[in-house]
Amino acid sequence: MNPDLPIDAADIEAAAARIAPYVHRTPLVTSAALSELAGCDLWMKAENLQKVGAFKARGAHNAVFALSEAEAAAGVVTHSSGNHAAAVALAARNRGTTAHVVMPSNAPEVKKAAVAGYGADITLCEPTLQAREDAVADIQARTGAVLVHPYDDPLVIAGQGTTGVEILDQLDGIGQGPPGAVVVPVGGGGLLAGIAVAVKSRYPDCAVIGAEPVGADDAHRSFHSGTLVPQTAPDTIADGLLTSLGERNFAIITRLVDDILLVDDPGIIEAMELIWTRIKLVVEPSGAVGVAAVLAHRARFAGQRVVAVLTGGNVDLRKLPW
Amino acid sequence: MNPDLPIDAADIEAAAARIAPYVHRTPLVTSAALSELAGCDLWMKAENLQKVGAFKARGAHNAVFALSEAEAAAGVVTHSSGNHAAAVALAARNRGTTAHVVMPSNAPEVKKAAVAGYGADITLCEPTLQAREDAVADIQARTGAVLVHPYDDPLVIAGQGTTGVEILDQLDGIGQGPPGAVVVPVGGGGLLAGIAVAVKSRYPDCAVIGAEPVGADDAHRSFHSGTLVPQTAPDTIADGLLTSLGERNFAIITRLVDDILLVDDPGIIEAMELIWTRIKLVVEPSGAVGVAAVLAHRARFAGQRVVAVLTGGNVDLRKLPW
Repeated sequence: MNPDLPIDAADIEAAAARIAPYVHRTPLVTSAALSELAGCDLWMKAENLQKVGAFKARGAHNAVFALSEAEAAAGVVTHSSGNHAAAVALAARNRGTTAHVVMPSNAPEVKKAAVAGYGADITLCEPTLQAREDAVADIQARTGAVLVHPYDDPLVIAGQGTTGVEILDQLDGIGQGPPGAVVVPVGGGGLLAGIAVAVKSRYPDCAVIGAEPVGADDAHRSFHSGTLVPQTAPDTIADGLLTSLGERNFAIITRLVDDILLVDDPGIIEAMELIWTRIKLVVEPSGAVGVAAVLAHRARFAGQRVVAVLTGGNVDLRKLPW
Repeated sequence: MNPDLPIDAADIEAAAARIAPYVHRTPLVTSAALSELAGCDLWMKAENLQKVGAFKARGAHNAVFALSEAEAAAGVVTHSSGNHAAAVALAARNRGTTAHVVMPSNAPEVKKAAVAGYGADITLCEPTLQAREDAVADIQARTGAVLVHPYDDPLVIAGQGTTGVEILDQLDGIGQGPPGAVVVPVGGGGLLAGIAVAVKSRYPDCAVIGAEPVGADDAHRSFHSGTLVPQTAPDTIADGLLTSLGERNFAIITRLVDDILLVDDPGIIEAMELIWTRIKLVVEPSGAVGVAAVLAHRARFAGQRVVAVLTGGNVDLRKLPW
């Protein structure tokens, strides 16, 4: 492992111990039907069954529970409007402190309700990045709350990396041995970077592969150019993967990840529908991107044992893509 | 236990051993959010994750694998168009014999495809009960195939009853002790009768309760009148529960079941949506009827440990009720 990376395997082990009381050890499931369709031995890590319905609970709990008593007393703040916001809200409630969540005024009511349901203090702002950052700065100045970044944070990356440790432990536990590849949806890159550290530190020969929508392909372009390229004007149904890759995440991904594969929206929708109908699990579009990549790049995985991460299951049942 | 009932606990134990290689031990899941909504400690047995997506795999495998070699060689026949048909088809394939499935010509293509996908020999007939029965008789006369009834059959009842044994074993296994009540959707009554025998033989004080749509309330009327009342003109979204209670099932239910509760279609849809959004599991309308009954009759279950069976997850994603 590279000593100059933002995190190492020990950070992930520490995260696993820290968050264990607050998060689920989610099931690792398989499906004969999907394996046959994919032409490989396909397993799925069901993080849609995680607390708050997404892997984000891991990183948020690690960051919030790593705070000192004094830091925690001042509360935490974030400006995500998605799964990370709910995760920070829950982690803060579990820690017994306040989560300040800045959300754009046009965020869906269902998301506001979810975050409010975890007891967070919500601040609405204009739907611009500047307004969000101003609101966060204002809250920090007023309360001393600590920012919990959704992905570009060593503690968040280590927390998400616990997903990778569990995958390997669960396969070991049922005598399946290491996978040939682990496929991880990539947005900001926290999950992909964390899993890469976890997997490569135990099995350097296991491929760790990012899966990204063609309509938000900054990680793909960054990975192949060697330069961090920001995402502008993303256009994909995978609304959890719109953001740009973080700097720390990129540093890890560029060293440890084997490839980043692209999938188009029809492929994402098809994978989502297969997961719903064949495995009876509700996944959001972003959560199906790993399986979509395996199906779209069959030759790459032929005959291998492959694990795709189902990252989340929070979807508006009245706005389904079929 | 009553020695004159169609099955006893030993039949269920035998079924469990017989079907173990072919069916899943499905998860028993809980949800803090649903428990809070229901005002009780609510657990759910996820038979939507069962083979073929429904508990029907249990009874079908028990019936098909209980056949002698000579009987099995002649094949099996059924005229269900729903989950039981797929279950019989899979069981026959696992046994290495032929399943003849009589389906009405107007059955949805997706259901025909599912049954065909398990390798069954499909015979289409006019959509009347007479035409179905004639087609079955014709197949039996021609092939000697054994009829596997969807519910009014001791082997099928015993197979479905293995669900009850697993629920009790799973609660024991995590130190939760017996439930106060087990709530089971009722159509033909195979699952309810089988679970009643399993549960009452171990915990006579645990309530076993049927849950039925108001639009197909023959079990409720039969139970309360003491006379088997056939279902005519059912009208409910729970399309797996339209059938009349079987005679053997009624004999068990009238002796062992504590009550049958009714739920209306809006309650079924609400429960279904809660299961999809909060637990991220795809259940069909019939599969949500147990949870719907717990929510609709809160006072009945207040503060108790309650297990509702999620019976199946086969639903047309393009015809959702919201």
